[in-house]
Amino acid sequence: MSSQPINLLHEDLFALEWELGYHKDAGLSPDTWMPAAVPGAVQLDVMKAENYKQPYWYGDNCKQFDWMEDYFFTYRTAFKKPDLEADQRLFFHSKGIDYSYEIYFNGIFLYAHEGMFSYVDLDLTDRLQELNELKVLILPVPKIGGVEFVPGTDTYRQNARESAKPAVGYGWDWHPRLVTRGIWDDTCLLVKNRSHLKNVSISYTLNDTFTYADISVVIEGLAIAGSSYTWRLEDKWGRTHLERRGELTADEKTISATLENPELWWPEGYGEPVLYRSELTLFGTDNESIDGRSSKLGFRKVSMVMNEGEWDKPTVFPTSRNRAPACLEINGRSIFAKGTNWVHPEIFPGLITTEIYRKHIELAKGAHFNLLRVWGGGITNKEAFFDLCDELGLLVWQEFPLACNNYPDKQSYLYVLEKEATSIINRIKQHACLAIWSGGNELFNAWGGMTEQSLALRLLNSLCYQLDSQTPFIFTSPLYGMGHGSYLFFDSKTGQEVLQWMPASDKTAYTEFGVPGLANLDVLKSFIPEDELFPPKRGTAWELHHAFGAWRHDSWLELPFLKAYFGEISSLESLVDFSQLTQAEGLKFIYEEARRQRPYCSMALNWCFQEPWPTAANNSLINWPDTLKPAYYEVANACRPVLASLRARKFVWHEGEQFKAELFILNDTYQAVEPKQVKVFLNADGQDMHLTSWDFLGSEGFKNAVGPLLEVNLPAMQNARFRIRVEVLGEVELSSEYVFLFKARDAPHTGYFRD
Amino acid sequence: MSSQPINLLHEDLFALEWELGYHKDAGLSPDTWMPAAVPGAVQLDVMKAENYKQPYWYGDNCKQFDWMEDYFFTYRTAFKKPDLEADQRLFFHSKGIDYSYEIYFNGIFLYAHEGMFSYVDLDLTDRLQELNELKVLILPVPKIGGVEFVPGTDTYRQNARESAKPAVGYGWDWHPRLVTRGIWDDTCLLVKNRSHLKNVSISYTLNDTFTYADISVVIEGLAIAGSSYTWRLEDKWGRTHLERRGELTADEKTISATLENPELWWPEGYGEPVLYRSELTLFGTDNESIDGRSSKLGFRKVSMVMNEGEWDKPTVFPTSRNRAPACLEINGRSIFAKGTNWVHPEIFPGLITTEIYRKHIELAKGAHFNLLRVWGGGITNKEAFFDLCDELGLLVWQEFPLACNNYPDKQSYLYVLEKEATSIINRIKQHACLAIWSGGNELFNAWGGMTEQSLALRLLNSLCYQLDSQTPFIFTSPLYGMGHGSYLFFDSKTGQEVLQWMPASDKTAYTEFGVPGLANLDVLKSFIPEDELFPPKRGTAWELHHAFGAWRHDSWLELPFLKAYFGEISSLESLVDFSQLTQAEGLKFIYEEARRQRPYCSMALNWCFQEPWPTAANNSLINWPDTLKPAYYEVANACRPVLASLRARKFVWHEGEQFKAELFILNDTYQAVEPKQVKVFLNADGQDMHLTSWDFLGSEGFKNAVGPLLEVNLPAMQNARFRIRVEVLGEVELSSEYVFLFKARDAPHTGYFRD
Repeated sequence: MSSQPINLLHEDLFALEWELGYHKDAGLSPDTWMPAAVPGAVQLDVMKAENYKQPYWYGDNCKQFDWMEDYFFTYRTAFKKPDLEADQRLFFHSKGIDYSYEIYFNGIFLYAHEGMFSYVDLDLTDRLQELNELKVLILPVPKIGGVEFVPGTDTYRQNARESAKPAVGYGWDWHPRLVTRGIWDDTCLLVKNRSHLKNVSISYTLNDTFTYADISVVIEGLAIAGSSYTWRLEDKWGRTHLERRGELTADEKTISATLENPELWWPEGYGEPVLYRSELTLFGTDNESIDGRSSKLGFRKVSMVMNEGEWDKPTVFPTSRNRAPACLEINGRSIFAKGTNWVHPEIFPGLITTEIYRKHIELAKGAHFNLLRVWGGGITNKEAFFDLCDELGLLVWQEFPLACNNYPDKQSYLYVLEKEATSIINRIKQHACLAIWSGGNELFNAWGGMTEQSLALRLLNSLCYQLDSQTPFIFTSPLYGMGHGSYLFFDSKTGQEVLQWMPASDKTAYTEFGVPGLANLDVLKSFIPEDELFPPKRGTAWELHHAFGAWRHDSWLELPFLKAYFGEISSLESLVDFSQLTQAEGLKFIYEEARRQRPYCSMALNWCFQEPWPTAANNSLINWPDTLKPAYYEVANACRPVLASLRARKFVWHEGEQFKAELFILNDTYQAVEPKQVKVFLNADGQDMHLTSWDFLGSEGFKNAVGPLLEVNLPAMQNARFRIRVEVLGEVELSSEYVFLFKARDAPHTGYFRD
Repeated sequence: MSSQPINLLHEDLFALEWELGYHKDAGLSPDTWMPAAVPGAVQLDVMKAENYKQPYWYGDNCKQFDWMEDYFFTYRTAFKKPDLEADQRLFFHSKGIDYSYEIYFNGIFLYAHEGMFSYVDLDLTDRLQELNELKVLILPVPKIGGVEFVPGTDTYRQNARESAKPAVGYGWDWHPRLVTRGIWDDTCLLVKNRSHLKNVSISYTLNDTFTYADISVVIEGLAIAGSSYTWRLEDKWGRTHLERRGELTADEKTISATLENPELWWPEGYGEPVLYRSELTLFGTDNESIDGRSSKLGFRKVSMVMNEGEWDKPTVFPTSRNRAPACLEINGRSIFAKGTNWVHPEIFPGLITTEIYRKHIELAKGAHFNLLRVWGGGITNKEAFFDLCDELGLLVWQEFPLACNNYPDKQSYLYVLEKEATSIINRIKQHACLAIWSGGNELFNAWGGMTEQSLALRLLNSLCYQLDSQTPFIFTSPLYGMGHGSYLFFDSKTGQEVLQWMPASDKTAYTEFGVPGLANLDVLKSFIPEDELFPPKRGTAWELHHAFGAWRHDSWLELPFLKAYFGEISSLESLVDFSQLTQAEGLKFIYEEARRQRPYCSMALNWCFQEPWPTAANNSLINWPDTLKPAYYEVANACRPVLASLRARKFVWHEGEQFKAELFILNDTYQAVEPKQVKVFLNADGQDMHLTSWDFLGSEGFKNAVGPLLEVNLPAMQNARFRIRVEVLGEVELSSEYVFLFKARDAPHTGYFRD
């Protein structure tokens, strides 16, 4: 549930006008002031005021921000003393200031904090003058040990190592070096009654058979003893299920109540995400309402249980431990977690609106996803994100802001992390969508270098245990048994393509995997200068936008691979087509294969869903801001709750070769599937050829069915592609189609792939 | 360091005489009272009073205790009101009562607790009468869900699942079902000043170069504000290094001080276990001493770091995490942890004395061990154990009382565990010897069934982080990369003997492994009735003492294996000889091979050191109470800091076979080894045959050296055994000798082992 933490009385009386300036030293003031958008980012204000080349995402325009990293920025706003009644107080409230900052009011230091994820609430009342000035001093970008940023090197690791600043801004293989700062979430002045609520926290315990929920509502306030309260729990039709009234004899109060037969909250594909509404109202001595909170509340139990079959593996001495559990159980039922890795949809988090969240979360739901892994390199999202996930039935795997780095056992860092993590946990734990807490991304791999001995991770486990023990906690991803990668259609290191490595793999959960695809043609044209468009070259906007050397040498365009598979490429249109075809078919294969590996396998989450600016090539399904790549549609098909599926041995076939594949009906719902007639066709050169039929006899809920093995000698074809269509008679919504490459008998073997 | 938690003023004035009785219901009183030994156990008092067959460890005498499990026991003692001065208080103090109990004083309920590891301190003063009676009611053995004990089944799992009672008493493969209860540690009445110390806790932080230690002494007391204090830190020669004096203005006080150039505490083999002495004295207003604490303090830093080479392993996608770190670093230096698994040396923990601890810990040190893993199935030891480990330089891996079980996420269990673990952590964290906290034994294996999601383990991580974050914490052993097993010389499941599986293994740490050996002849005769002695049979004292079916079918006598290797066995003497030979040679091989696998491998700890009663056969090195098996001496040889070592391919050789082995000089000290002349001899039928020589050129500290490969065609021999002697010229203390079995060319192959 989402608790509205602030009582927005009179807020429009105090809409603030902000100005911004920069300066080299903390003690200095800006020479000039410019208008500032709040929420926003210091970069965007300067860009606008100083007539930078726009937009920032075009060509190499983002480099214009580089000089700002070591500058201080100061926000200021002025306002007249408001007419406060005797029992009213004026607060400065902000939901997020990025990153280290100090707040001054009428020239007096009020508050300092490091970290962008803690809310700020400062009572200004006693220091009010007729005309008031509020200043927020933003400190330079944290760069550990004074290590300077060197483009093209791993300096992001040194820079980001000792702060709770999301690491992605220091540069990633799909994100430029661009470290945002500024006031990035809702910020305003608020009038509150002197007696007001500070926190309302709702928790519950469901019994083992889910027939009732014991609810606790913990009220904490300032000077609320003597007030009375009403608390009500309503369903979505406004029917009241529980109501409690009483007097407050102290500033803290716990209300207990039991809800019989709660309608449970379920994630996408397993039921409805039912939400109740909790409403608490506080009344003063003359019975007028003085404060209140309302929030949504979903009843569900989340566990992380051992993957089916893992405990049954034989013990061979010397034996190590069994693998870590990676199977989500919701309300007592194992689910197959289909989803994606969420990276924030805008480079500047101040630009992310509820509408953007809604658009992206609806797209995720549209792909039949039920789990979003909010990757630890990025930001912890605003409240609207969690509200929407609650509403739409998307589970959230929430990582703390640690990624691919060895965060130290230093007290100074642990102090900041503890404050930020406490804010994050207390805010998000109230949401029905929350499924997993995770310490961060790839921390237990060589490029992370942390272990279960790292104090930062022990601290996070301890905090989550103390504040929210009912939600599973993992130190990082991947854990023992989970898989990250690969991120290519064909991996020259292993000599295998996706269709080969994936069936040989036995991971508990595929929590990251990717196949790169070029951006859509229109998207490429929108940010690459026309004279650089084709052929793509290093040293142009292609490279800055991650088509060359972003990860391995050829990432993410992967030109040698594309040429090996498709021959010489003569146009941008063809390049986009070839790249997007392999992305779409590769990802479809992985999702379906992960589902075929059920019940041992429990998750498939591709890297990654969206991107924060337009990349030229990247593993994402969606181009910035919200253009769908073809892979999105194929992944959505692969994630249909029930579908016919084909496991082919490889992607490139030669004339006369025996095409081999197995047939399946995949079902990860808990409903049985009725008997079906399945027919398989080869479509080549526009002709359908019937290959085989399968009398599928039906299957139980949460069970896959295996059909016959398909073995066909491939005929000669004119076209370089052919399709296999697995048709469920009369049910096009269950049918599937797969594209393969065809090479004539005398086509040269490139040696690049094994064929 | 060990803080003396109680000020033992006048204690002998109040030596208490205890009586004991049993009864079916909590509300009842015993019909009869018998004398009770405190500390002790209820079983021992009844045995003595009711003329049971003795000793309890002979034959099947221990079965006489079976009926007691479901009875209540009550201890009682009476004493006259002591002459207390006006500012004095009388306390009842106990260091341990086993297991669930209630305390009544003069008929009034005072206190109840579940758990044997928390100290009890009850102020009796205000309830004193002229004649006083103190009663301790001991509740029945915890048996979860009323599951009855069924001999020979796994009922121990159900019984032990929801309590913090050490699991071993419910029956193990080397421990009878015998669940102890009673007052098991020092217990007395104490007179304290009204103003007295409650807790004195010393902690310190060493800087990175170990040139100074920042010390904090936290004093907590009752009504001590207004007193003055002196705190001194002395070295072992009594020289004062730090002294602080001051007034207490509150009941809590933190004294800070910095010790320059502390002499560091080192474990066996790496330096001296240097201890300082801390002494705090409290003075009343008239300057008389009113309370004080003294304790030993060792300065060292313990870390658990990644095993060398693990981070360098190549990444193959899909990739999982790297293995868990298992290398202990002391004061910035990696060490090789040689040691053993400690199980308590008496079934009845009330019988364990400081002398017994000293004897066993000195034996461990004598075997060149530097680490004792205090296994989670047993008890957490008394203070004397830790004092001795501090003094003698033995590191301690301390497990919480969880073993081979799925302890539940239930609030009632977590409540008990939190109380017990908090007591354990706060007591032991002060000791220099403490190296590792561990959740318990084999919890992440199928027969444990717990995972990192288990709330009990998350709780323990959280408590250790909050109370003692400077000591490494692991959830359990084995973790990913560590090895447990095997526990046989020849494992018929894998078809491999110790000399074969161990060189093929690549574990980070061998934290349990074993080879069973029969007890010494005298020991066997001391508890097996004469008419049962030979041949060993099921259904006799042999079986009750773990020679048959204790683990797998033939464990631990392993008669089929012994017959396959040695042929028909005609006497008890031969049986003991054959069994003890394979134990000694097998364990020697594992310790040396683990050392050869350094630096990747970081630990070798055999299962197990001692035993709590006389077993007929078992993996221990020591027979109860303190008789050494031959394996003890061979293991001690294998653990010499520097030695010549041989890696032979197998144990049984045939005439004419080519004997193959590699030579090594092993060195896990940080001192270089000088050049040596090494000669290798085959000793057969009493004749020495020179096989090869090696001009060893010396090696650096903490480095092993590899010598030539030995390849010899074996001659015909008369005897069934031959020896290879690796002689370091003039340095018998570095030389080694290995025994092998010889089979004539025409000897039948048994098929049992691969030869």
